[in-house]
Amino acid sequence: MDSSAQLDSTNFLQHQLHDIVSLLEKQELEKSLVDKSTSSHHDLEETLIVKQHQARIQERLADMHSADIALILESLPLDQRQSVWNSIKGDHDGQILLEVSDAVRQTLISGMKAEELVTFASSLDADEIADLADDLPKPAMLKILRSLNNRERTNLKTILSYEDDQVGAFMDFGMIAIRDDLSLEAIIDYIRKLGKLPGHTDKLFVVDQDNIVKGVLPVQRLLTHAPELQVADAMVTDFVQFRIDHDTADASRAFERYDLISAPVVDSRGELQGRLCVDSIIDFIREKNDEEMLSKAGVEEDEDLFSGIWKSARNRWGWLLINVATALASTRIIGFYEDVILQLVALASLMPIVAAMGGNTGNQTSILIIRSLALGQINPDNVRRLIKKELMLAVLNGLFIGIIVGVLSWLLYHDKALAFVVGSAMLINLLVAVTVGLSIPLLRHKYGRDPAVGASIMLTAITDSMGFFIVLILAKMFLVGR
Amino acid sequence: MDSSAQLDSTNFLQHQLHDIVSLLEKQELEKSLVDKSTSSHHDLEETLIVKQHQARIQERLADMHSADIALILESLPLDQRQSVWNSIKGDHDGQILLEVSDAVRQTLISGMKAEELVTFASSLDADEIADLADDLPKPAMLKILRSLNNRERTNLKTILSYEDDQVGAFMDFGMIAIRDDLSLEAIIDYIRKLGKLPGHTDKLFVVDQDNIVKGVLPVQRLLTHAPELQVADAMVTDFVQFRIDHDTADASRAFERYDLISAPVVDSRGELQGRLCVDSIIDFIREKNDEEMLSKAGVEEDEDLFSGIWKSARNRWGWLLINVATALASTRIIGFYEDVILQLVALASLMPIVAAMGGNTGNQTSILIIRSLALGQINPDNVRRLIKKELMLAVLNGLFIGIIVGVLSWLLYHDKALAFVVGSAMLINLLVAVTVGLSIPLLRHKYGRDPAVGASIMLTAITDSMGFFIVLILAKMFLVGR
Repeated sequence: MDSSAQLDSTNFLQHQLHDIVSLLEKQELEKSLVDKSTSSHHDLEETLIVKQHQARIQERLADMHSADIALILESLPLDQRQSVWNSIKGDHDGQILLEVSDAVRQTLISGMKAEELVTFASSLDADEIADLADDLPKPAMLKILRSLNNRERTNLKTILSYEDDQVGAFMDFGMIAIRDDLSLEAIIDYIRKLGKLPGHTDKLFVVDQDNIVKGVLPVQRLLTHAPELQVADAMVTDFVQFRIDHDTADASRAFERYDLISAPVVDSRGELQGRLCVDSIIDFIREKNDEEMLSKAGVEEDEDLFSGIWKSARNRWGWLLINVATALASTRIIGFYEDVILQLVALASLMPIVAAMGGNTGNQTSILIIRSLALGQINPDNVRRLIKKELMLAVLNGLFIGIIVGVLSWLLYHDKALAFVVGSAMLINLLVAVTVGLSIPLLRHKYGRDPAVGASIMLTAITDSMGFFIVLILAKMFLVGR
Repeated sequence: MDSSAQLDSTNFLQHQLHDIVSLLEKQELEKSLVDKSTSSHHDLEETLIVKQHQARIQERLADMHSADIALILESLPLDQRQSVWNSIKGDHDGQILLEVSDAVRQTLISGMKAEELVTFASSLDADEIADLADDLPKPAMLKILRSLNNRERTNLKTILSYEDDQVGAFMDFGMIAIRDDLSLEAIIDYIRKLGKLPGHTDKLFVVDQDNIVKGVLPVQRLLTHAPELQVADAMVTDFVQFRIDHDTADASRAFERYDLISAPVVDSRGELQGRLCVDSIIDFIREKNDEEMLSKAGVEEDEDLFSGIWKSARNRWGWLLINVATALASTRIIGFYEDVILQLVALASLMPIVAAMGGNTGNQTSILIIRSLALGQINPDNVRRLIKKELMLAVLNGLFIGIIVGVLSWLLYHDKALAFVVGSAMLINLLVAVTVGLSIPLLRHKYGRDPAVGASIMLTAITDSMGFFIVLILAKMFLVGR
């Protein structure tokens, strides 16, 4: 970061990135010139060129924020990324590894020695090491554990013992706990001796002798309230705290609702275990959204823009194979009714509309239900009214779209019976679609599963097969052998 | 909120909601009993019952946080929602209106008089009134404007003059600006006189005589640094600020990257205009994500769970009609080749696989590109390498899926030529899909549009039509008339 106010960070970063890429390309060019020359000092000259460029890259990135360097590394193809990383890793601490995406982190770590990783970890807090833990090779992780002091090791193990969706996995230990029988003045003295408060410290946590949280003391009250007041008289007792084993999604909603910056994390007895801060919550929200978006498109995990082709391919094949399987199901339904199609070939072109519209409508319903479930708006008291509303809506939509598709069919083939069959099939398939679109998320939620997982693919599989089936069975009943 | 620490807010809210619904149902029951009785004081008795229940509901909600009441209102069907709202709106300020979703806000406001709305607005800051402005009826808005003092009116107009995606629309005016020639002691005295700092005040903004931001003073430095120090010596000059007319999405990424709680907002000359806080940023991130998710499913705007059926239907028809239109295009392609299908009816069942798989693969590519664009990872320097990688991946995927689909076709119909045609069509359609999946977001981004808008529907329209077309044209060339 520049030593003055930073404006327009996006353009600034693009600019930096461009300069670094130019440097790297120049380095390649100079190296290839040396290769072509007849000098006998090839290797020496090449080393010299690399050293020079490394120094220039170091200089460029020296004052930048680790999050910005992370973005630059993410934007570079593998070979250039490795080259920049080799130039700078000596100068920077582990923060950069925290900031890059999981996929990019693996490419950076894979080239590092265990000793280097231990040095990196030494600059990180327990909660930060926990973030890296999944990507660290086992030997390095053991060495890091051994390098920690007792408290840090306990903290690290605590965080690692919670699942990804539990509050415990997202907390840190930067809280300041105080007793309620002290004066504000004593607290101010204590802070002055500390010299610095951990980031995001907007309140201190007030605990009793059993470490049970009794209240919170907003830092600003140290400035606005009389110094001789006791903490007990200045603290807030109406505050939000989180259970260490509860759901992070619920906690993130609470952060939004109550505009929190930090909050105590406690165990089942109310003992203070750590704190949750708004920056971890933002990371959690982003991660969840990205995951949802990627999983909806069937990309199994976060992908490095420049990961190897085989790796990317494997990451996407699982989903594609599932889709082949479900498409095969509809294929078999059509195959079974080939005689109907031979008698009325128009069906081959009209069926896909009925199938596709079912998928679209069902998807609208299921997305709204999934979202309302996430917001906590759906509960046993209103779910019946909601189902009734969506089904009535399906009838209305079905009549509307059914009539349109029926009329289109008639315009294309001038066959009233055919138009009637296609229109009716449309109506029936939309009812099927909305029923499925309601049922999948509601049932998954009822049985404690994530309502969004797999909703779209199951829905499309059913509406496709049913779309073809309904058209063909109605055609067989009413149109064949007229 | 309870007057003690609040744990597990989700269950607490579900519990409250259930009690309120029970109260409302009991009220209905009692009213219907009065209706059936032969008493001559019907109306009087009914009014009494309603008053009693209103008092009970008021009592239940009296201590709750406005965000929690908002969630309860969102979860209630229209009639019950109105009944609860009528009971409590006298006791609460405008915060509840801020917290409910846009769709629900409209249902609440529609039943209110202009005077009531002005009273509500009087408890809100300019930036909060701006959030409501879209949903307020014009006469009420004019009355509110007249009720404001000059500074508030100017502030409100400033915010309203920026677009939804600009920093100016999300800022507030709760900043504290100080001069750099004061001592920290003087600042502490000033804060003590204020008695309270605005929420999210983690730093004070240091400005010169022209109101240009020179630095920021973290509030904690008032506690950790010597009181006789001058602001100029204690302030941080390496800080992040935002231009009022810049993109909020960029600002939200900066908040994430630099873990900000608040930051100054300045105009093009660097003059302080307001501040941006992390709570607005979280709201922005959520809103954007919800919008994206809903628009991908073709729900035009946020929907009240219990909005009228006609309103919901209209909200979803636009998308469904577009889909009918694109489906019609593929229909026409199939219709054109009906003779081919009549000669080889197996095509009718095999074509949909080729079309569907194209859509799935193209979608994977476009989602990854859209995400990388949003993260700022794609730039002129690496875009060519990225395109090359995705195209190579498409060839690999195409061969893999093409062979699988070819083998399946052969197993089903024992026709080698047919299997070869279907497999080749699969490969070609995947190449088309990935090309389109790359081009739409990259081109939209290049011309300054949102890369995500409409990507999925255009992609599916093209891969569907092309899937059918490629199968049929290859079949006509190689299979018909064998």
